[in-house]
Amino acid sequence: MKLAILGFGTIGGGVYEIVNERKSPALMDCEVVKILDLPQNKDKLDIIVCDIKDISEDETIDVVVETMGGIHPAYEFIMDCLAHKKHVVTANKAVVAAHMEDFLQAAKENGVKFLFEASTGGGIPWLESIKKARRIDEIQSFYGIFNGTTNYILDSMNKENKSFEEALKNAQALGYAERNPSADIDGYDVSNKVVISSALSFDLRIGVKDFPCYTMSTISFDDIQFLKSKGQMIKYIGEASVKDGAYEAFVMPNVVSATSLEANVPSNFNLISLYGETIGELKFYGQGAGKLPTANAIVEDVLDIKEGISFGEVSLKKEIAYSDTLQGHTYLIRTNKMYDEDIVDCVEHVGANYYVSTKSITTKDFVAFASKVLADDPQAMIAKYK
Amino acid sequence: MKLAILGFGTIGGGVYEIVNERKSPALMDCEVVKILDLPQNKDKLDIIVCDIKDISEDETIDVVVETMGGIHPAYEFIMDCLAHKKHVVTANKAVVAAHMEDFLQAAKENGVKFLFEASTGGGIPWLESIKKARRIDEIQSFYGIFNGTTNYILDSMNKENKSFEEALKNAQALGYAERNPSADIDGYDVSNKVVISSALSFDLRIGVKDFPCYTMSTISFDDIQFLKSKGQMIKYIGEASVKDGAYEAFVMPNVVSATSLEANVPSNFNLISLYGETIGELKFYGQGAGKLPTANAIVEDVLDIKEGISFGEVSLKKEIAYSDTLQGHTYLIRTNKMYDEDIVDCVEHVGANYYVSTKSITTKDFVAFASKVLADDPQAMIAKYK
Repeated sequence: MKLAILGFGTIGGGVYEIVNERKSPALMDCEVVKILDLPQNKDKLDIIVCDIKDISEDETIDVVVETMGGIHPAYEFIMDCLAHKKHVVTANKAVVAAHMEDFLQAAKENGVKFLFEASTGGGIPWLESIKKARRIDEIQSFYGIFNGTTNYILDSMNKENKSFEEALKNAQALGYAERNPSADIDGYDVSNKVVISSALSFDLRIGVKDFPCYTMSTISFDDIQFLKSKGQMIKYIGEASVKDGAYEAFVMPNVVSATSLEANVPSNFNLISLYGETIGELKFYGQGAGKLPTANAIVEDVLDIKEGISFGEVSLKKEIAYSDTLQGHTYLIRTNKMYDEDIVDCVEHVGANYYVSTKSITTKDFVAFASKVLADDPQAMIAKYK
Repeated sequence: MKLAILGFGTIGGGVYEIVNERKSPALMDCEVVKILDLPQNKDKLDIIVCDIKDISEDETIDVVVETMGGIHPAYEFIMDCLAHKKHVVTANKAVVAAHMEDFLQAAKENGVKFLFEASTGGGIPWLESIKKARRIDEIQSFYGIFNGTTNYILDSMNKENKSFEEALKNAQALGYAERNPSADIDGYDVSNKVVISSALSFDLRIGVKDFPCYTMSTISFDDIQFLKSKGQMIKYIGEASVKDGAYEAFVMPNVVSATSLEANVPSNFNLISLYGETIGELKFYGQGAGKLPTANAIVEDVLDIKEGISFGEVSLKKEIAYSDTLQGHTYLIRTNKMYDEDIVDCVEHVGANYYVSTKSITTKDFVAFASKVLADDPQAMIAKYK
């Protein structure tokens, strides 16, 4: 089986290493034969090409692995390769979340596979586990730590008593966070993963703007200490659930018990759970990013294609609506003034901070209240109790 | 696809419920058509038969699910069904650990599958995850909580300050522990699972008596408190690893950090990890036992057979030896007298207890020391530091 890789950065390099250099027995007859990279990198390896046509129009290539990231030109290149009847495997969550239908339809029309295990949960076998569970169960919900950067920051704030800024700086120095960390800390990355996981779990096509998303960048040293004193921790969570023909989803900080598995996920690891009718709760833990774990997930997809393994296709057939009154939840907001709305259950005044816990309220009431608080205090910390 | 179930207890009943009553779309063309049970249960359901020949010689049956438990007559019945070219799926860890080669060879000779996902980790997709990981990686080690009964007891001792006896009694009342709990608390159950996981992870045929196994029944209320004061917890662990052409394995209490994932596994859940070269550490959490989770794992095997899905066959080709000098580890022993051997690192005297921590020593030295201590004090608690 002949492979081409689009993009020769960290992940693309990892795929090349696993397929062409490490060569497990299952990969003996697989080979990366072309890599698309920029003209200035042409001399790095003799299989580098600079024109997508050299790959999409090469009839000897069976599978194209896209590791460029970003929406354009990844979208056009993937569509080009699918149109030329090449299987496509990608780790690019942004382009999958934005253009899933186009890719799935083009793959179907051309009789090839479009797989994206590495886009969500990195090295964790998450998307295939959802598909496998669904052969028997309806998935009722998923929940978890989908982002290693923010987990590293929170773990470091909690264990080493670092401020958010210090922890972020360390994450950047270690290569866990980008120079512009917004995609991670403001939830765009997790939102993409919630969109992708919802498609797999519920056959549901949702957009990143269809559900509430709150930043974790306002979590302060004080907040961590306040929660610690109560045997609690804060983690950055993506989740969705389906009930009575409607769905809800959130990306936001969550207050969890210090003795929960989530609270004890160290460093930049991920932990993602699904809940099914007969299987109950299953949790999957591993590296959500990184060169070899992510490349490993890509190569697993390649091997599934080679071996004809599929636990079912992704279909986006369900037309169930988002509901902001589906279930009641309780929330914790830290802000700089007192609130005594009806929905407030209790307020704790610690130093300059007011910790406002709500009663169990609808998402609608919560979003309205959070908007009001954020208008008064843009640095307010907005969290949900697990 | 037509199924027969051998044994109509809890697990067999769960398989019947999932296949014949719940019927997910993937199971639409699957049906349990015969169930083997005792004559006195003949009237419970009109598909009950009492002679294995009614199943093994029925040419319309494709898959036989064995949920009787125990070695005999499960062994003979499985061999009979394989010889009649029926795929066999079992949850019976004892018979798999004891007779794996016979089953795998008979299945091969008859061109059918022999699958046993539910035998280890219950509802956790553990064995298939090992097979999948091995397409790319060598597995270096596995480690984890393989037994829900003992985890329930330890969790209850830790969180509710129960004595071992009280916790065991509660586990029995809840149906988590047998009236004779020895298989769980003395490690035979976990040893079987270590044998099975070693076959999948390392192609290695080992026996339950080939490696050290220590009971968890001597863990006392005092021990839990002693460790708690140090930010530690005790968990009952099965593990194995391969290095330099040899292997080591253990089943015994482990001292883990209170902030590890293992320490925070609640109730009767399991958490099992594998470590691979490129994927790093993957952990899987879920119900290791119970009617529907275990039945779910069985039905997943049935669906893999129906859909022709396989991540590779189990082969027992490796002839690497057990080594009791492979790696150094440190141990904690609680006993009623002082020891000052060379291998002792430090001793803490608390009440009537001596907590002896060893230096990093070989398994050989550890086993010799543990034997000596147990000869002096049969109630000594023997644990390994993670």
